[in-house]
Amino acid sequence: MARINEHFAKLPASYLFPEIGRRVRAYQAEHPDARVIRLGIGDVTEPLAPAIVRAMHEAVEELGRRETFRGYGPEQGYDFLVEAIRRHDYAARGVEIAADEIFVSDGSKCDSGNVQELFAHGARIAVTDPVYPVYVDSNVMAGRTAAAGPDGRYPGFVYLVGTEANGFQPAPPAEPVDFVYLCSPNNPTGTVATRAELARWVAWAKQTDAIILFDAAYEAYISDPSLPRSIYEIEGARDCAIELRSFSKRAGFTGVRCAFMVVPKTVTGSAPDGSRVSLNALWSRRHTTKFNGASYAVQRGAAAAYSPEGLAETSAQIAFYMENARLLREGLTACGFTVFGGVHAPYLWLRTTGGASSWQFFDRLLGEAQVVGTPGAGFGPAGEGYFRLSAFNSRANIEEALGRIRKVFG
Amino acid sequence: MARINEHFAKLPASYLFPEIGRRVRAYQAEHPDARVIRLGIGDVTEPLAPAIVRAMHEAVEELGRRETFRGYGPEQGYDFLVEAIRRHDYAARGVEIAADEIFVSDGSKCDSGNVQELFAHGARIAVTDPVYPVYVDSNVMAGRTAAAGPDGRYPGFVYLVGTEANGFQPAPPAEPVDFVYLCSPNNPTGTVATRAELARWVAWAKQTDAIILFDAAYEAYISDPSLPRSIYEIEGARDCAIELRSFSKRAGFTGVRCAFMVVPKTVTGSAPDGSRVSLNALWSRRHTTKFNGASYAVQRGAAAAYSPEGLAETSAQIAFYMENARLLREGLTACGFTVFGGVHAPYLWLRTTGGASSWQFFDRLLGEAQVVGTPGAGFGPAGEGYFRLSAFNSRANIEEALGRIRKVFG
Repeated sequence: MARINEHFAKLPASYLFPEIGRRVRAYQAEHPDARVIRLGIGDVTEPLAPAIVRAMHEAVEELGRRETFRGYGPEQGYDFLVEAIRRHDYAARGVEIAADEIFVSDGSKCDSGNVQELFAHGARIAVTDPVYPVYVDSNVMAGRTAAAGPDGRYPGFVYLVGTEANGFQPAPPAEPVDFVYLCSPNNPTGTVATRAELARWVAWAKQTDAIILFDAAYEAYISDPSLPRSIYEIEGARDCAIELRSFSKRAGFTGVRCAFMVVPKTVTGSAPDGSRVSLNALWSRRHTTKFNGASYAVQRGAAAAYSPEGLAETSAQIAFYMENARLLREGLTACGFTVFGGVHAPYLWLRTTGGASSWQFFDRLLGEAQVVGTPGAGFGPAGEGYFRLSAFNSRANIEEALGRIRKVFG
Repeated sequence: MARINEHFAKLPASYLFPEIGRRVRAYQAEHPDARVIRLGIGDVTEPLAPAIVRAMHEAVEELGRRETFRGYGPEQGYDFLVEAIRRHDYAARGVEIAADEIFVSDGSKCDSGNVQELFAHGARIAVTDPVYPVYVDSNVMAGRTAAAGPDGRYPGFVYLVGTEANGFQPAPPAEPVDFVYLCSPNNPTGTVATRAELARWVAWAKQTDAIILFDAAYEAYISDPSLPRSIYEIEGARDCAIELRSFSKRAGFTGVRCAFMVVPKTVTGSAPDGSRVSLNALWSRRHTTKFNGASYAVQRGAAAAYSPEGLAETSAQIAFYMENARLLREGLTACGFTVFGGVHAPYLWLRTTGGASSWQFFDRLLGEAQVVGTPGAGFGPAGEGYFRLSAFNSRANIEEALGRIRKVFG
């Protein structure tokens, strides 16, 4: 008898973004002339940088010639990319990461969904609330939780509630957990952890023998040079933290697909017999067994993001999006909204008005302003009453969206 | 305390192909002048077809222009590719598959490693022996087995032994299982299942309520038009089979990365309460939660493989490799080897000579002929005493390899 994985039934019927897509399509079907502006899923809109385009063309040419054709690459990523990552993202900031501690992949959504496979079935997990849903859903699917309670929370998780009072940077849990997902700059709230806050997390992890899964997909949006971009800038993090990075938002790769995960060889976990096991060795086994490398042309494109031209061009794109974020932040504040984030992250997190629920606000913004955002409740119960807007769009659309919002709420 | 997934420790220390890579690197380090010919991992060597190169260039251009830039695509794959798959691979052979039954991915290694997530933790699994290692290893990692016995077999699997007597096409298991992995044309043996053999499997699956995971990554190498290329050409398979396909071997995409999985809506499994659950809905949830779509340029390249030019060019490549296979088959047979496969698949499966173990034969072939193959024992205990050679190489290298083998064994 084909017995299915019964844990999938514990998930809400639909993943957040497909549900948003469904509602937008339904609205467009009823209002074919409406020009909907999408500030929802957080997808980039600027074209790939010319240096990246050139590198991808060259790679495609190589694949088309017998002498330069390449088939399977190393599962962990090509040396040319791994080395660029090692030097630019780490060594240049005083962080020593070895080449064999870097694992290139086809995206941070995959990495953040797969990384839980390293841990015991009975592992206890801390997540922030609100939170990027993949962290939660991937553990629910793996059977680490019971069914969700009426508040949408799963027994098996320790929820660390982000509030306005703690600046959406909750403290480490008091009870023991095996691992915690942290995201900074944060998706969805757009807030960023300071050096002191990260140091507190590292101290906690070392003290309690927990592992930090640090999602730094938005590090390129940090504008204050004194803020850490990598958790490894914190003393001791090499012993307790895995870091996830992505080219999606930093180089416009949402449709190109490339990311990487850093698993220092000094990060260890506990086997049932009490022995210590290197997570680097485990992830290497997982990565080589269930993954076959990122696309060659994609890796060439990612490496080009580190060339002098690539760095200049992608920095200009990020500055462009961050100017959008500034405009949104100021415009929404002027409308009377309470707004968080948007300074070191391309996301703005706003309190809904008039006691509206997140989805009520979604429907109102779509229906009255033809602007799509993301309901805070989609990121967890503590996101209820909040709403996420992304700064990824053309300047004209940002200004148009702000104008419409001003008309409805101003 | 960070408790790790203890099931990884049940795996052999190294995945097969990295171990082969290690031995070859060690040999090359000691013999820097040796020209090693690789017929091991089964990696294509012909450049991408011109139609595919053109399509990928165009896609890269699109991504470089604001008006045509695309970010996140649908996780299930773009319509242009899904539709090409539906029409050419299925409708053209009289098989009705709906667009939302096709899930494009970045590779069959990922798909075949991930598909087990659909099943209950306690599911019982049948695999052939010899077998593509990912089927086994991914279930071991998921904790569905105890530690391997001294014969390398895991309690929890039902092993279906392929022998010369059954033509490496073992019969369905007598005991109940939840799902079975079948691969035809077979990796590693190069043999192919007939219509009657597949019909027997489908009848068994329907009768016992089991699900067939049908890996058809090599279907393009079937040269006899009367042999089924899809399991859905068998009546009833839409109720019990999931099919995996890849562009790797059919269009030279080993480094480009694109594949797909077909999950008919009529395939159901059993929930703990006895209700029936659609595996299509489960896989859709898994795919949208833990995957973010294959690279856009890659999908454009894959779609171009279905254009008239793309079909002609990739068919010529396949014919070229199959001529290599014919040469290998005849040459090895003339040397006195007993050879299987190589007629409807790019793999040849040969019996080692003189009672050599698979790894002894590997070391001898590498040391004396500087030819790399894959030890049969790497595919399971029943592969011991056998050896796999792949037909993926230039004609000159195939002829050179044959000449060297003739000198050593002829």
